[in-house]
Amino acid sequence: VTTEHASKHFEDDLRRLDNIIAEMGGLAEAQLADAMDVIVKRDEEKAQVVIAGDERIDALAREVEELTVTMLAIHQPMAEDLRTVIAALRTSAVIERIGDYAKNIAKRTAALSQAPPMGPTRTIVRMGTLVQRMIKHVLDAYVARDPDAANDVRDSDEEVDALYTSLFRELLTYMMEDPRNITASTHLLFVAKNIERIGDHATNVAHNVLFMVHGHAPAERRVKGDASSYTVVEPQEPPPDRTPGNDH
Amino acid sequence: VTTEHASKHFEDDLRRLDNIIAEMGGLAEAQLADAMDVIVKRDEEKAQVVIAGDERIDALAREVEELTVTMLAIHQPMAEDLRTVIAALRTSAVIERIGDYAKNIAKRTAALSQAPPMGPTRTIVRMGTLVQRMIKHVLDAYVARDPDAANDVRDSDEEVDALYTSLFRELLTYMMEDPRNITASTHLLFVAKNIERIGDHATNVAHNVLFMVHGHAPAERRVKGDASSYTVVEPQEPPPDRTPGNDH
Repeated sequence: VTTEHASKHFEDDLRRLDNIIAEMGGLAEAQLADAMDVIVKRDEEKAQVVIAGDERIDALAREVEELTVTMLAIHQPMAEDLRTVIAALRTSAVIERIGDYAKNIAKRTAALSQAPPMGPTRTIVRMGTLVQRMIKHVLDAYVARDPDAANDVRDSDEEVDALYTSLFRELLTYMMEDPRNITASTHLLFVAKNIERIGDHATNVAHNVLFMVHGHAPAERRVKGDASSYTVVEPQEPPPDRTPGNDH
Repeated sequence: VTTEHASKHFEDDLRRLDNIIAEMGGLAEAQLADAMDVIVKRDEEKAQVVIAGDERIDALAREVEELTVTMLAIHQPMAEDLRTVIAALRTSAVIERIGDYAKNIAKRTAALSQAPPMGPTRTIVRMGTLVQRMIKHVLDAYVARDPDAANDVRDSDEEVDALYTSLFRELLTYMMEDPRNITASTHLLFVAKNIERIGDHATNVAHNVLFMVHGHAPAERRVKGDASSYTVVEPQEPPPDRTPGNDH
């Protein structure tokens, strides 16, 4: 009966863990949606709400940390139970990080508001919506312990990476057209990079689901479809003193 | 005798964990040093060596993952022993991430080589050296279980953040001076951001040392001295059609 009681206690704790992580995921999703709204509407007041809202996610991450350490110490779980606790600890760290990215996007509102609205903002919002859906989908898969559903986010992540790479080119071109676009374009570039990273993190949650259920993550940790590190854009009219092709 | 034997076995495993983490730290430090060297000398061949070198760090991170899960399952450690195993798992994830940043810096070599050498590269190398020392210092503190020494990296991290914020302004100014600087400056901005993030991660290792020894991390997770998200730089000569001051 004592073992049954302990096992029931452990199951309760696991459910509590899942609930906190689902709550964190919902908050992170909402924070990202709000951050997108904020940069489209240049709503500096709402930006402050998003910035302050990150504290709640951080507090929940600390709660997961305390709960998992207690669970490991008291129940000393084995096999899949042990992996589930470790996956929870890691997943909460990932969501905490996603929250940081949403907060950082909101912080850039003031700097973005200095320039006229820019076309690439639409692409960024598309990326944001895609990544928001990835967070929701992968956390549903997490709570359902469904590695196949979790794996679906990989395809979306490739789409996000492709959008990011094309946005990188587009924003560089904007900067070259008019120096007054440079500050805002740079901040938009970082917003896009943050969204791209959130996509990577959704993929990391998928790996945690695989680890939890099968005991191992896929051998290659991450497919990097983001080719922006290699991207070069030249100004449209090269000045006459430029001799192209001799130093590259 | 069996308990003694088990305890000796656990101590051996802990030492093995420390050794792997020390090795990972040394590799990450070297990868960062090499990445700095690569972007200064624009050595695309060596860049490939850095990019390929990240695989070794990833493999060691997987080794730490397997070893920690086995240790938790077999020894079912309590209190400080339990926290030490969790801290190792987290620290190895942090170093793995630092390796990713060094690799990403190396990847930008080709794009950086398209433009003439730029002054801000010197500031970036200074940031890189500072952060390299932070990695070494905080991992020495980790192996020595010395929270005070670990905490020293916080001051350095503030210095890194300040350098990054001033570099952000400087690179935006460069872009505005000549559109031919835009591609390289953007890549340098991401290099600087990567180094700034490595500094944050060194601080995360310091938190792991505090958690391991004292059982809790400091309440505020991270002081954000990086003010670049708010930075606006205006082109030096505003075109006549610009009416300043009415939309900001």
